[in-house]
Amino acid sequence: MELNEALAKLNELQMKMYAYRTASSALYLDGVTVAPKETSAGRGVALGILAGEEHKLFSDPEVGKLLDFLKEKNAELDPVIARQVELLSRSYAQLSRIPMDEYVEYAQLTNDAGDAWHKAKETSDFQLFRPYLEKLVAFNIKFAGYYDSTKKPYDALLNEYERGVDMEYLDKFFGEVRSRLVPIIKKIAEQPQIDDSFLNKNYPVDVQRKFSDYLMEVMGLDRNHCTIGETEHPFTLNFNSRDVRITTNYSENSLADSLYSVVHEGGHALYELNVDPAYDYNCLSGGVSMGIHESQSRFYENIIGRSKAFAKAIFPKVKEFFPTQLEGVDADMFYRAINKSQPSLIRTEADELTYSFHVMIRYEIEKQLIGGTLEVKDVPSEWNRLYKEYLGVDVPDDKHGCLQDSHWSGGSFGYFPSYALGSAYGVQMLRKMEDEIDVWGAVEKGDLAPITAWLKEKVHKFGCLKDPADILKNAVGGEFDPKYYAEYLENKFSALYGF
Amino acid sequence: MELNEALAKLNELQMKMYAYRTASSALYLDGVTVAPKETSAGRGVALGILAGEEHKLFSDPEVGKLLDFLKEKNAELDPVIARQVELLSRSYAQLSRIPMDEYVEYAQLTNDAGDAWHKAKETSDFQLFRPYLEKLVAFNIKFAGYYDSTKKPYDALLNEYERGVDMEYLDKFFGEVRSRLVPIIKKIAEQPQIDDSFLNKNYPVDVQRKFSDYLMEVMGLDRNHCTIGETEHPFTLNFNSRDVRITTNYSENSLADSLYSVVHEGGHALYELNVDPAYDYNCLSGGVSMGIHESQSRFYENIIGRSKAFAKAIFPKVKEFFPTQLEGVDADMFYRAINKSQPSLIRTEADELTYSFHVMIRYEIEKQLIGGTLEVKDVPSEWNRLYKEYLGVDVPDDKHGCLQDSHWSGGSFGYFPSYALGSAYGVQMLRKMEDEIDVWGAVEKGDLAPITAWLKEKVHKFGCLKDPADILKNAVGGEFDPKYYAEYLENKFSALYGF
Repeated sequence: MELNEALAKLNELQMKMYAYRTASSALYLDGVTVAPKETSAGRGVALGILAGEEHKLFSDPEVGKLLDFLKEKNAELDPVIARQVELLSRSYAQLSRIPMDEYVEYAQLTNDAGDAWHKAKETSDFQLFRPYLEKLVAFNIKFAGYYDSTKKPYDALLNEYERGVDMEYLDKFFGEVRSRLVPIIKKIAEQPQIDDSFLNKNYPVDVQRKFSDYLMEVMGLDRNHCTIGETEHPFTLNFNSRDVRITTNYSENSLADSLYSVVHEGGHALYELNVDPAYDYNCLSGGVSMGIHESQSRFYENIIGRSKAFAKAIFPKVKEFFPTQLEGVDADMFYRAINKSQPSLIRTEADELTYSFHVMIRYEIEKQLIGGTLEVKDVPSEWNRLYKEYLGVDVPDDKHGCLQDSHWSGGSFGYFPSYALGSAYGVQMLRKMEDEIDVWGAVEKGDLAPITAWLKEKVHKFGCLKDPADILKNAVGGEFDPKYYAEYLENKFSALYGF
Repeated sequence: MELNEALAKLNELQMKMYAYRTASSALYLDGVTVAPKETSAGRGVALGILAGEEHKLFSDPEVGKLLDFLKEKNAELDPVIARQVELLSRSYAQLSRIPMDEYVEYAQLTNDAGDAWHKAKETSDFQLFRPYLEKLVAFNIKFAGYYDSTKKPYDALLNEYERGVDMEYLDKFFGEVRSRLVPIIKKIAEQPQIDDSFLNKNYPVDVQRKFSDYLMEVMGLDRNHCTIGETEHPFTLNFNSRDVRITTNYSENSLADSLYSVVHEGGHALYELNVDPAYDYNCLSGGVSMGIHESQSRFYENIIGRSKAFAKAIFPKVKEFFPTQLEGVDADMFYRAINKSQPSLIRTEADELTYSFHVMIRYEIEKQLIGGTLEVKDVPSEWNRLYKEYLGVDVPDDKHGCLQDSHWSGGSFGYFPSYALGSAYGVQMLRKMEDEIDVWGAVEKGDLAPITAWLKEKVHKFGCLKDPADILKNAVGGEFDPKYYAEYLENKFSALYGF
């Protein structure tokens, strides 16, 4: 094989994978936004066939030979191409170790488990989901061995979501966060609570839609390349760096729900839109990992979006949209309300301070499940025990407990820690950013452009060109240190609650 | 090869084709409804690759062998399978003659041409679209030879849209229509014109949206399987018989525009929803031809939707939605207004009587373009000349002239005649239906169920099981005769204008 021929084949392979991914994404997007209610069967048939075709394409032994050939020629390759070969080889090695029958069975299982989880959650009946969760755990333990048999199973799964992260790293991270934040949470419980009742007045959805347009404008999201839709669970979907979609969910009795969904998903979208367009249609496109992705979304949502400077900057406009609801409210009251901290049951509704505890609980349970020290049947009682221990709350039923998140039903074990890691990465990036540009001066003016430009240069533009650890190191100019995150929360919440 | 093995392969092939078609449809739907404005490039890349994969799948010589094998076993096949083999063999013979590179280039061209046409129409600048139209015409002349080299190119293209229809058939049809309707149009010009000004008052879009929901209910469209969206140009898209989408376009200054778009597209949708679900995921799914499809959509739009009985049935409800706009208007005034006939510039806004003349003009131009007697650069002047000759109107610019329709930008040459044929087919079906059920008694009660049931039994359920000519024969119990259509229009419009 000639090198040029091999490079052409590599490009063709990646273009096809892009096309299959684009097709599946379009079908998914349609399904959760505008599709009629009783139409999932026909979409499922098409999605199954497309997934099978993509699997056949990529698991072809010819692909293995192509990648081996290119690895041998590594010295002659452009670094961008060399990175593509590296990432594709990694995926190929993993995928080709999964026997076809297991792959197909697992695809079917996650599809069925999703339905079972929905029903179980609706009726708050864990037993409906239990047999699926048992199979999902067993599969993931087996797959972990395919991914990296030299690692402990949960370490191998964690490495899939955030390369380089393992239990040792997370135990240290969560240990420090926990020891420093528990006292803060206890102190807040002793203070008078913040009044946020005005955030839960009647906020008509059609006005909220226009408010979302304003928020996207503030964030600098180019509507020619990024639209907003409505779904039960907000998400960001990227077709390519020129075509990104976010969604939100409007609740008539909440201003903050959709506001922070838009800012959070907007953060994901900015990342995707700022990836070097040269990586479109190949495997370097898109954000590099869930941890880095969450570092961006939670950066905009919390560090910027829930800052005093941002609250002051947008409040006059917020009041223009909702004058009667916010009568008698000023920017400072608004700032305090959007930061009210209170231990609660639902992760997605948790405040910035207690959020990490929700993640820790899931981490502890996953560690034990995949480690084999916790049986699936005991998940609800362990969940409830940990919520009491970590957050002091009593879980009334599994709907508000271990059935609240969809992740496990989709086979995602090892994903949750990314949320907390991302929050911590974001704070460390902020500290570096503050050294280099006038972050808060810009935010006060409602001008996020210099912030986004900094993140684009340090994080976004690389796409998957570097590993997440290298992107973080590049952005913060050093090693990850959770102390920045803990300090940031200590300072913010002691000031808010006055102790 | 064993027969069972061959049948399994036939099924697998059709399932994969369904998956590719579903993927392309989802991308198309996204593109014209919710996608951000400047994102067609990335979609085009994916669509091109998916089209290429589908082409490779279907044009594989193994498919030819499979189909030949099954044709030999024809006597042993279930008639439904035999029909699949017949249709697939027909397509295979055509497609396998199109070289892969031309096929992919054409897919890319139609994607780009769509953008160019949009811009050209917006700015009324034909020169922007001209180079694309030239390439599209050249491709279609070439493809016509692939489809059927024994036919004249335009006959071969016509045969793609309506099997059995050619220029001889259409010249006769349009000749009769023209000779009988020109006198009517002239007589109307001598009568006092109907007042339809109340149809163009301010009709707020949000109320029109709710009115569309009502119309879909009247039509018996099941919203669990059929949604309505909004696009510049209304259309119907079917994923499968359980998943159909229609779109409309709201104009704040028109009640009739969206009303009749919804009823028209609703007619297409009923056809698709009523096809035997056994044909889902294989090549018998969906409507059989554009002519039969338009016979259904225009049946609901004009024959039912613009009838006196329907006007009377829905008018009380129309007035509930728009009480101030329709103050002082009664059902008879409404009936007359929605049937006002006047030669005009825009096909989609034309009344039932002059509509066929718009189609004839496009037919004449296509005939010359594909026949090689008209150059693309001369399309605007020929268009304007024919509008003056046939309808007596002066075309002010190309936006209101030859750039008004999207069909050519999508590579559709030979499609337009289906609209006029469909109208004529529909009237002949009506005559037969009137013999068998109480059509107008049902319409007066606002109950379209018996009408839809009749059409389901005679037309819809067959999908592509029979050729269009056979479906028409089956429905009307005889040969096609344009006299029914001409008579129907003569009677309706002489009564309306009182001569």
